[in-house]
Amino acid sequence: MKLQKSELPALLERIYSEVTPLYGVGKTADYIPPLSRVNPRQFGMAIRFVDGDEFTVGQASTPFSIQSISKLFALMLALDIVGDDLWKRVGREPSGMRFNSLLQLENENGIPRNPFINAGAIVVTDTIVNHSASPVKRLEQFMASLSGNVFNRYDPEVYVAEARTGYRNAAIANLLKALGNLEGEVDVVLDSYYKQCSMTMSCLDLARATESLANKGKSSFRTQFHGERMDKRVNALMLTCGLYDAAGNFAYQVGLPAKSGVGGGIVAVLPGYFSVAVWSPELDSYGNSVLGQKALELLTHYTSSSIF
Amino acid sequence: MKLQKSELPALLERIYSEVTPLYGVGKTADYIPPLSRVNPRQFGMAIRFVDGDEFTVGQASTPFSIQSISKLFALMLALDIVGDDLWKRVGREPSGMRFNSLLQLENENGIPRNPFINAGAIVVTDTIVNHSASPVKRLEQFMASLSGNVFNRYDPEVYVAEARTGYRNAAIANLLKALGNLEGEVDVVLDSYYKQCSMTMSCLDLARATESLANKGKSSFRTQFHGERMDKRVNALMLTCGLYDAAGNFAYQVGLPAKSGVGGGIVAVLPGYFSVAVWSPELDSYGNSVLGQKALELLTHYTSSSIF
Amino acid sequence: MKLQKSELPALLERIYSEVTPLYGVGKTADYIPPLSRVNPRQFGMAIRFVDGDEFTVGQASTPFSIQSISKLFALMLALDIVGDDLWKRVGREPSGMRFNSLLQLENENGIPRNPFINAGAIVVTDTIVNHSASPVKRLEQFMASLSGNVFNRYDPEVYVAEARTGYRNAAIANLLKALGNLEGEVDVVLDSYYKQCSMTMSCLDLARATESLANKGKSSFRTQFHGERMDKRVNALMLTCGLYDAAGNFAYQVGLPAKSGVGGGIVAVLPGYFSVAVWSPELDSYGNSVLGQKALELLTHYTSSSIF
Amino acid sequence: MKLQKSELPALLERIYSEVTPLYGVGKTADYIPPLSRVNPRQFGMAIRFVDGDEFTVGQASTPFSIQSISKLFALMLALDIVGDDLWKRVGREPSGMRFNSLLQLENENGIPRNPFINAGAIVVTDTIVNHSASPVKRLEQFMASLSGNVFNRYDPEVYVAEARTGYRNAAIANLLKALGNLEGEVDVVLDSYYKQCSMTMSCLDLARATESLANKGKSSFRTQFHGERMDKRVNALMLTCGLYDAAGNFAYQVGLPAKSGVGGGIVAVLPGYFSVAVWSPELDSYGNSVLGQKALELLTHYTSSSIF
Repeated sequence: MKLQKSELPALLERIYSEVTPLYGVGKTADYIPPLSRVNPRQFGMAIRFVDGDEFTVGQASTPFSIQSISKLFALMLALDIVGDDLWKRVGREPSGMRFNSLLQLENENGIPRNPFINAGAIVVTDTIVNHSASPVKRLEQFMASLSGNVFNRYDPEVYVAEARTGYRNAAIANLLKALGNLEGEVDVVLDSYYKQCSMTMSCLDLARATESLANKGKSSFRTQFHGERMDKRVNALMLTCGLYDAAGNFAYQVGLPAKSGVGGGIVAVLPGYFSVAVWSPELDSYGNSVLGQKALELLTHYTSSSIF
Repeated sequence: MKLQKSELPALLERIYSEVTPLYGVGKTADYIPPLSRVNPRQFGMAIRFVDGDEFTVGQASTPFSIQSISKLFALMLALDIVGDDLWKRVGREPSGMRFNSLLQLENENGIPRNPFINAGAIVVTDTIVNHSASPVKRLEQFMASLSGNVFNRYDPEVYVAEARTGYRNAAIANLLKALGNLEGEVDVVLDSYYKQCSMTMSCLDLARATESLANKGKSSFRTQFHGERMDKRVNALMLTCGLYDAAGNFAYQVGLPAKSGVGGGIVAVLPGYFSVAVWSPELDSYGNSVLGQKALELLTHYTSSSIF
Repeated sequence: MKLQKSELPALLERIYSEVTPLYGVGKTADYIPPLSRVNPRQFGMAIRFVDGDEFTVGQASTPFSIQSISKLFALMLALDIVGDDLWKRVGREPSGMRFNSLLQLENENGIPRNPFINAGAIVVTDTIVNHSASPVKRLEQFMASLSGNVFNRYDPEVYVAEARTGYRNAAIANLLKALGNLEGEVDVVLDSYYKQCSMTMSCLDLARATESLANKGKSSFRTQFHGERMDKRVNALMLTCGLYDAAGNFAYQVGLPAKSGVGGGIVAVLPGYFSVAVWSPELDSYGNSVLGQKALELLTHYTSSSIF
Repeated sequence: MKLQKSELPALLERIYSEVTPLYGVGKTADYIPPLSRVNPRQFGMAIRFVDGDEFTVGQASTPFSIQSISKLFALMLALDIVGDDLWKRVGREPSGMRFNSLLQLENENGIPRNPFINAGAIVVTDTIVNHSASPVKRLEQFMASLSGNVFNRYDPEVYVAEARTGYRNAAIANLLKALGNLEGEVDVVLDSYYKQCSMTMSCLDLARATESLANKGKSSFRTQFHGERMDKRVNALMLTCGLYDAAGNFAYQVGLPAKSGVGGGIVAVLPGYFSVAVWSPELDSYGNSVLGQKALELLTHYTSSSIF
């Protein structure tokens, strides 16, 4: 990385000014009312270096619905609980298909391709559910322990909307059950899953919560994870599978492990250097934030940051 | 058809003796306990000519679980209710895939290929549900009006077992809902669907209930259907889609429109001549009765019956 | 069938007048120049009863490119040569996919679903090639022996155009070879296949050539086939697979076994009664003649003809 | 990376002794005779640091058939010729399917998912063919300019064997042509493609030839590439798509951008540090070298090397 940290504030301002012309190119997620009602013209960005220095721009402290970014934290928690046993039930390969496809599941005996497609994430949630007295509370506490913010909870309004319209996820969970890869009751697992997807965090929360992925597993707010170098492995999964069907292109353009959500958030890490979170609600056709992707591309461009 | 009706009793006895050596070649459906517990070595056959003459052999009056044969009656009822509007929501083409595949549904915007695959049958049931105060009672009455037997009802034990293990059907119904092709509530439609599949009839009931398909739409036990020549069209659907993935082969070997169920029953018709039902619980790998198929093949062979 | 033969001339005139308003609804095949250059506003129809009576209307004697209808004759010839051994290499089930799909071939070990999709037809041609000194000549002679017209030959101009643009067929043939289901050399088999598809016949030729399918295997111009009741089985295949992806719908609407070609021809039979051929170059999106299908639908409607 | 370079020789010996017990676990590629005849119990490894220091163990100087590793060099050459225009014809996403699947190609209008599956590699070769007077010679010279070894040429015996059995590649090329994504003649492009896959190099050649990918695009044997930072982008593609269907798992286990071939070779890079090549002919079920993968896993484990 070519950059003095003292240049960061100016750089973030520059990025901010360069991405805002993209307002209107994408559009907010429309599948549930609470997401579609969000003011689309918002942008926030927070970067946290492994030494603890933090820099922000825009609405970096505004909480938003993290949606699929929660799959990252659920994965970390499940790995912390069951370790590599998780991989008996979920694969680690890119899916090459729309993130909610059922075809692959049928063809491959109910083993989802990876933990970031919905089917895989539901199996991850199932793992947490079956090892926890209060799975949602446990996940909330896990995330609070990573971000240091006990207000990182699920949003009841978003949860209700998710549950009300979650027919496709219900199809996936039932198919997993039919194929023998769901231990819990379908309704119970889905309830946890919808709550998990409804978690609310800000860019700053997310940059802190992913610190361990940039810092060899060490977190400022939490004792060490059980697994050795979980960060390295989770980063590999983010790079190959983290941005739905656009993971390959993002790796090519940006070159950082990252995970996105349809709430408009994206987290990314440069291992050894920093974790970063961006948020802007307008999405491209892949479900990834338009301004968020551009901001990360500019950040890596101006700082010559890339894992490659 | 080359046959004197007086030869029928001897012919049915001959067929009976020629198919029983096949006991043990197939095996009973094992996906729900009530079906797997049925005595597998049973065989019944009933043939009803359009003039009302009936001939039977074996356990032709033993009630059994008609399972997917119910899709035929549900289709007839739905066509009687909404007519050709049904085809806006279901196709009429063979599926070319295992009868419960979800892939096709995703690729073709939620329009099931035909009314005999599970997805299509669930849409048919949805149609009945949305036009009936008591859909299950209506279907029971419809079937009783066709067979003349008011004891043709759903079996509560089979229904409970179907509902308890119906994850794949739940996946299908939820996917249909997600894709906008299910009007009713998922749980309500599935409940009706499981009850419909749990209907109990005998070979003789079935031969009578399908009389209209052999007799230009006329039924001895019921007034005319609304639709003109529904029989012709339903027969076409049976021929192209009636035996799951083995429809083409059955058309080639037997040459009669037919519909099978995993309870071991098969109904078939020779338009203008007769309707026939066979039952024997042991199934081949496609889910079709081994002895049942053989019996129909022998019947058409010995009588030179074929629509072709 | 409800009809006096004396009414046929008037009926055919009526049908003619009722279909011609459909000129312009479809469009001619555009994938090779010789087909796209055909005058689109042509219509012919010929019907031949099993007693030898023939009736025609329009351009019933104009030769046209029979294209995929040739698959029917190639199938009959291959069955005549190798009998049921053919079914070790080709299935008898509808494909449920666009007629030239490669997916099914990969998934099912190189066994094409049926002899009327391109992959299946290429295997059929391969069978003829491997049992014939001069396969194309043999097929020409076979067809002439069925139609009684020695001028039924392949059109060199169409052949050259087919060969020049046949990349998809080349893909299929190479995949069949890779999967172990092509005995001949790829180029040799394709050459025969392109010539076969380029055969030229008129409606009258076709009605005569399919007489055996309406008449229990008997042909006026040729001695008996080897196989017993090949007609019955070929008719079953036509009904379930004869009109590409529209076979189910055609069975539902028309109810006759039939085979179509992108040259605009369709042959159909009512077993025991007649064979019929129609031709009009404008096609619907499935590749079937718009006027041809309508003419057959009207014929069956006015005469109450249907196998169902 | 935690390692003194002085420890390298001992480390490579240790790795060598730890992987050789795996002889016999995999088996050599059997699809063409020249590959199946290779002595399976061979292992070589060469590592080249960006400062030019080189270390080897085993048969690091033995030339072998690089097979799909050639796709990496062809990609670099094509990018050097046409730049980002290449991406109009090839995607950058993992395929999620067996490396030679045709399904994806049909569904996505002939745009291969990435340049490392066969379909994508054939499009890359097509690009080179259409911009070169002597495409094979150009590729040979390009590779020699990267490795500094003018003896890196194609092996005529392997080429002939590839061409003789390349039906699946012929299917792919014909389908690409049918779908409008092949400019050259099918036979011409395939000829170049088979020759490219038949190139022969040693581990040492490969470690040198991939130096630029570890060293920000700089090569010791060649002037700069045209494109800016091509290395970064090619590395991203290797990481997400380089090991067929096992790319995700390799990223997870090893964490280096890499490209494998069925000749048993694998190249990998740690950007900023080193390029490395391993070779051992016995393959796992994915077509990747068993000992090669293990050697790279041990190298990264003992040196804590990973991009993550």
